[in-house]
Amino acid sequence: MAINIDNANAAAVERIVEARPVLTGLGRALDLVPGMHENLLLHAGPPIAWEQASGPLRGALIGALIFEGRAADEDEAVRMIAGGEISLAPCHHHSAVGPMAGVISPSMAVYVVENQTHGNRAYSNLNEGYGKVLRYGAYSDEVQERLHWMHDVMAPVLAAAIESCSGLDIRALLAEALHMGDEGHNRNKAGSILYTKQLAPHIAKGAPDPATAAEVLEALGDNALSVLNPVMAACKAMADAGHEVEGSTVVTTMARNGTEFGIRVSGLGGRWFTSPCPQPVGLYFPGFSAEDGNPDIGDSTITETAGIGAFAMAAAPAIVTFVSGTPQDALNATMEMYEITAAEHTAFTIPQLDFRGTPVGIDLRAVVETGITPRVNTGIAHKEAGVGQIGAGLVRPPIELFTEALIAFAEEYGF
Amino acid sequence: MAINIDNANAAAVERIVEARPVLTGLGRALDLVPGMHENLLLHAGPPIAWEQASGPLRGALIGALIFEGRAADEDEAVRMIAGGEISLAPCHHHSAVGPMAGVISPSMAVYVVENQTHGNRAYSNLNEGYGKVLRYGAYSDEVQERLHWMHDVMAPVLAAAIESCSGLDIRALLAEALHMGDEGHNRNKAGSILYTKQLAPHIAKGAPDPATAAEVLEALGDNALSVLNPVMAACKAMADAGHEVEGSTVVTTMARNGTEFGIRVSGLGGRWFTSPCPQPVGLYFPGFSAEDGNPDIGDSTITETAGIGAFAMAAAPAIVTFVSGTPQDALNATMEMYEITAAEHTAFTIPQLDFRGTPVGIDLRAVVETGITPRVNTGIAHKEAGVGQIGAGLVRPPIELFTEALIAFAEEYGF
Repeated sequence: MAINIDNANAAAVERIVEARPVLTGLGRALDLVPGMHENLLLHAGPPIAWEQASGPLRGALIGALIFEGRAADEDEAVRMIAGGEISLAPCHHHSAVGPMAGVISPSMAVYVVENQTHGNRAYSNLNEGYGKVLRYGAYSDEVQERLHWMHDVMAPVLAAAIESCSGLDIRALLAEALHMGDEGHNRNKAGSILYTKQLAPHIAKGAPDPATAAEVLEALGDNALSVLNPVMAACKAMADAGHEVEGSTVVTTMARNGTEFGIRVSGLGGRWFTSPCPQPVGLYFPGFSAEDGNPDIGDSTITETAGIGAFAMAAAPAIVTFVSGTPQDALNATMEMYEITAAEHTAFTIPQLDFRGTPVGIDLRAVVETGITPRVNTGIAHKEAGVGQIGAGLVRPPIELFTEALIAFAEEYGF
Repeated sequence: MAINIDNANAAAVERIVEARPVLTGLGRALDLVPGMHENLLLHAGPPIAWEQASGPLRGALIGALIFEGRAADEDEAVRMIAGGEISLAPCHHHSAVGPMAGVISPSMAVYVVENQTHGNRAYSNLNEGYGKVLRYGAYSDEVQERLHWMHDVMAPVLAAAIESCSGLDIRALLAEALHMGDEGHNRNKAGSILYTKQLAPHIAKGAPDPATAAEVLEALGDNALSVLNPVMAACKAMADAGHEVEGSTVVTTMARNGTEFGIRVSGLGGRWFTSPCPQPVGLYFPGFSAEDGNPDIGDSTITETAGIGAFAMAAAPAIVTFVSGTPQDALNATMEMYEITAAEHTAFTIPQLDFRGTPVGIDLRAVVETGITPRVNTGIAHKEAGVGQIGAGLVRPPIELFTEALIAFAEEYGF
């Protein structure tokens, strides 16, 4: 029987849209993430060797080994990774995603998000907030201290709170946040306080003491990216639900490791298509400019893959003060993405567009035919290890990725 | 020296815009509200006698006396008010405001909002949430129970939390909420969770025990109108800052008592202009229709008076699912209000309109010249005492009010 690509895409997108990701738990990566082991570090984007890794990814890998107590300092960490004692693998190969460098090490806490429609799970690490943070490649003592507080103090409180509220529907939370000016990727201000508010009573009840409850509530509430990581895991759970549909040209992964941008396609299984990663265009923090910036990095493009983020820009006009542009540009961004997507989301709607569903399910064919590549909102990391975030902006994956994938698709299916 | 109305209006609006309302405390009305006494009940809107009061206002007055323990039942409450043992006065005469019936009784808790630019204060009661609530005229046992829990359990926790966070800038909170899809009157979803999030650590630390902290956090977080009352007090503090500027035609009060709509004008002091109150046009809850609705009621029009609410509709496209209309109508609503206002707000901006300031400072002259009356978002109360909210929608004060006030202004200033 001949493959009908339109039908295959409809099936893939239907699975993405019908997925209902629910945050059900939080625990140690080693205990929860499939295939995780003592000598493995997960990272954002497609596979990469230490030698090709950029500054911020190297910084985060070094920092993770110091956090684990496996390396005393940078030199030792580098020896362990470069020498092969520690293996590297993409988060995406382990049902996981992480923002920016996206490093997940064995004893880090991970959120568990379960797609209650199809049963698959996805994982993400905790969000560290702003400033010098591991995900942007910083690994100094203050970064380590923060990571230890997060894991020793905050994680157990969050785990108990999530258990106590018996599941937090992230799709519902996102749908609400899109009506509150979030796009779910760079702007998660509403989502993060919705998340804080839902957990707050459980945190107050379950924390070991009132001072700890207050500390955790403050950390969660004052970090406008608190919910980004559960949201990314939710998007991963949704995108994975649409993966491996035979004959589908829907893009189910977009991710960057700081060196290469990679995509995967529903009908082409685990195969990555990669090309050198462009640098984002955007606004830099005072004292920094484009020449300090690293090429784009992170798994957070899973949001655009699942139909939010830059695809839902129209819902978030206030974001332009952060990533540059005007509110009209924000509307245009979403309108453009309808050109390359297979469907409109039924759960994620945009008030500004008369409650039209967000564009969802990037169709490889449409990208190649129109020459319109997916828009991605992103943060900008300093190119050197140890510095951190220096801006935020927009990026697009190179068109070659999509052309190459479409050729592979034609070969695979004998068109 | 001849009066220059434009200059007077500019001065009045400058005071409104520069007012910085900060929530500084919470305590008993009897102890805090100027002129409050044991035998006084405050109510929404212009002055009214018991005989003229509509169902929902009567219900709330009765309920307040039962809450106070002054009356055992409806009959006794009615006798006390109709017989003159209990006096009635507008909240507005006591630097206070209340949503819907707006009843504030001596032992009720009130928020204290201080305008830190000009030093004046304003007060409002606690928000009860949804369903059968006193402000919509319900006063059954469940309403009383809820009021007692709010005053015995929640109020002391809130008072301690507000004190612990040493002042909560409501203008800043509103500015942020307008970028998160609120208009600050009917939609306070973002504002209420911003409010909850800011108080949460202080509640966790200050509550007598974790279970109480959890209860209060849940009540606050799950009520999308939690912040409405502090917001109204903030708007009152801002509007009052622009009141009594000689020669100004800026409207500094709009309020309804369920029978009459009343306005006051900056340059005309304490004088009310009133006329029969129209019924809102909007969406009714299942089982109710326009014939069940009471004429409009409440002090919450103080939000529009201060340049938010229906004046900021463009910021809140998602509200149309609640009050009827389309997102384009929401944009149009704000655009129309620029026609009758003296200025654009510098703190409250609308992303959807390229961050243009909200229209602020209703100019009596412009209303009469254009025939455009201020738009008001509102809830709809059942016309009978004891029922509650039956819908939400839009209303406009009658044009006669403004004509009458302008004639009085001309007489006063000898034009």
